[in-house]
Amino acid sequence: MTEDAFETFEAKIRRRVAEQGFMRLIGAELGPLSPGRSEISVARRPELLQQNGFFHGGVTAFLVDNGTTIAAATVLRTGQLALTAEYKLNFLAPAEGERMICRSRVVKPGRAMTIVEANVFDVIGDKEKHTAVALATIAVLDAKVLEGRSGGAAG
Amino acid sequence: MTEDAFETFEAKIRRRVAEQGFMRLIGAELGPLSPGRSEISVARRPELLQQNGFFHGGVTAFLVDNGTTIAAATVLRTGQLALTAEYKLNFLAPAEGERMICRSRVVKPGRAMTIVEANVFDVIGDKEKHTAVALATIAVLDAKVLEGRSGGAAG
Amino acid sequence: MTEDAFETFEAKIRRRVAEQGFMRLIGAELGPLSPGRSEISVARRPELLQQNGFFHGGVTAFLVDNGTTIAAATVLRTGQLALTAEYKLNFLAPAEGERMICRSRVVKPGRAMTIVEANVFDVIGDKEKHTAVALATIAVLDAKVLEGRSGGAAG
Amino acid sequence: MTEDAFETFEAKIRRRVAEQGFMRLIGAELGPLSPGRSEISVARRPELLQQNGFFHGGVTAFLVDNGTTIAAATVLRTGQLALTAEYKLNFLAPAEGERMICRSRVVKPGRAMTIVEANVFDVIGDKEKHTAVALATIAVLDAKVLEGRSGGAAG
Repeated sequence: MTEDAFETFEAKIRRRVAEQGFMRLIGAELGPLSPGRSEISVARRPELLQQNGFFHGGVTAFLVDNGTTIAAATVLRTGQLALTAEYKLNFLAPAEGERMICRSRVVKPGRAMTIVEANVFDVIGDKEKHTAVALATIAVLDAKVLEGRSGGAAG
Repeated sequence: MTEDAFETFEAKIRRRVAEQGFMRLIGAELGPLSPGRSEISVARRPELLQQNGFFHGGVTAFLVDNGTTIAAATVLRTGQLALTAEYKLNFLAPAEGERMICRSRVVKPGRAMTIVEANVFDVIGDKEKHTAVALATIAVLDAKVLEGRSGGAAG
Repeated sequence: MTEDAFETFEAKIRRRVAEQGFMRLIGAELGPLSPGRSEISVARRPELLQQNGFFHGGVTAFLVDNGTTIAAATVLRTGQLALTAEYKLNFLAPAEGERMICRSRVVKPGRAMTIVEANVFDVIGDKEKHTAVALATIAVLDAKVLEGRSGGAAG
Repeated sequence: MTEDAFETFEAKIRRRVAEQGFMRLIGAELGPLSPGRSEISVARRPELLQQNGFFHGGVTAFLVDNGTTIAAATVLRTGQLALTAEYKLNFLAPAEGERMICRSRVVKPGRAMTIVEANVFDVIGDKEKHTAVALATIAVLDAKVLEGRSGGAAG
């Protein structure tokens, strides 16, 4: 894909993600995208925490769900759609900083499924703490087939 | 545990879960609890959807994260705490109904970790559609050790 | 599928599984098959153990790998092939009995992927102990496309 | 740990792994170990294949099961034991070469559980093809508590 082509593709991904009501409810922001990579982050707010003042595990899961699907979407071909099929998520440490960032990377693109890994970091001042790691399978579908699935479709 | 003892325990779990800012942001409701089982659900609202009008995968993940930890919390002993260690989640079908319910069940309680399975259903009229299945490991900790983790602590 | 048709299909699955060198090395036996279900088991031998005298975790993983793919194969249509895409496996207890049995069940068949759950039991006398639980995604492919994958193809 | 201390520790790990009947049946070899890392590999033999001539998925799973537990064992303290709690494994491509290598790396060591990632490669001539990726949780136990689990105990 030329750089121009990726820019057009990226614009489309950003537009679709912006249409997600849940993305706005969480208040997450899409960071830089490049072929095979995505970054998504969210700032700390009381509504995103659990009872001990840490980011809720569900916020981490949302970042992983969306971030991995968006990373897979960056390597789609025209007319294809990326939908979350499954993921596994390990929590490593509590996230108690002012921001959480999820960086996703395509491990292996595929015709029917793309494998993506994600790492979540907690930003405290100018340091980052590794708080979660995940491994996801993203289904690659013909856009015409869209009867969808509940995952973070981003293609 | 006598029935009375479980009621006291249950009240404590409900109190802690009610303190989660993220639980209120999502608008989820805790259903019936019994030893080894939990039910948690959420009604459809535009803020919980993705761009195709289905429940966002992150909402499913939140229900699984919280539901499995709460199920593990129902079999704790006094002075113990349940924290999400990891889970794996498979999406089966899009969730497009008026409510999503997650039912969790302890497969095997343990001294250091408890294994829990969860099934998520989409309620459409008087029917339920199976939309996700998950398998979780919940860490069982001494409550004194609470430096926590970002999971949905519920003990 | 008529009963006759399933019998033909089943014979084909059994023939393919019998061709697996690794199946013979382990000494595993295929039990009853029915649409959506499989059973596979192996008797205790010193070569299947780890250093503490329990069945090695890799034996459990082999049973899950093969059992879930075979269960998915029982619901294929003609010209399709089942290949392991991914699974997650939780160990619940040591397997120290005379036989290990893995029972797999299709949770949701699909056009491109089928979700299967598996439970592994340790047989001690006339009792069964639950020793592992797993959740698998099995890729469903057009048999013509066979460039395969390393999973336990069984279709 | 001093270098001398690690050598003693490493010798103990190698001794224990050598006691595994299943390790010998598979014919796997332990490669270099260092704190937080392990390498384990196996050469192609007809007994390790499935019906299409690829390495069986169960062989990949065995390497991941043993490799991740051994990596976790390299960061134990005296009197502790590493036991496989759970893992998730994604197959990326068929393994058809002359050798399969699994490299494991501790992502986060912990008091009760250590998180390990693994990558499996297929060696074809002087090239390596990435054939599987995995994420594992290894339980860290007091060696006195050994009632074990069926995983590849290596501490």
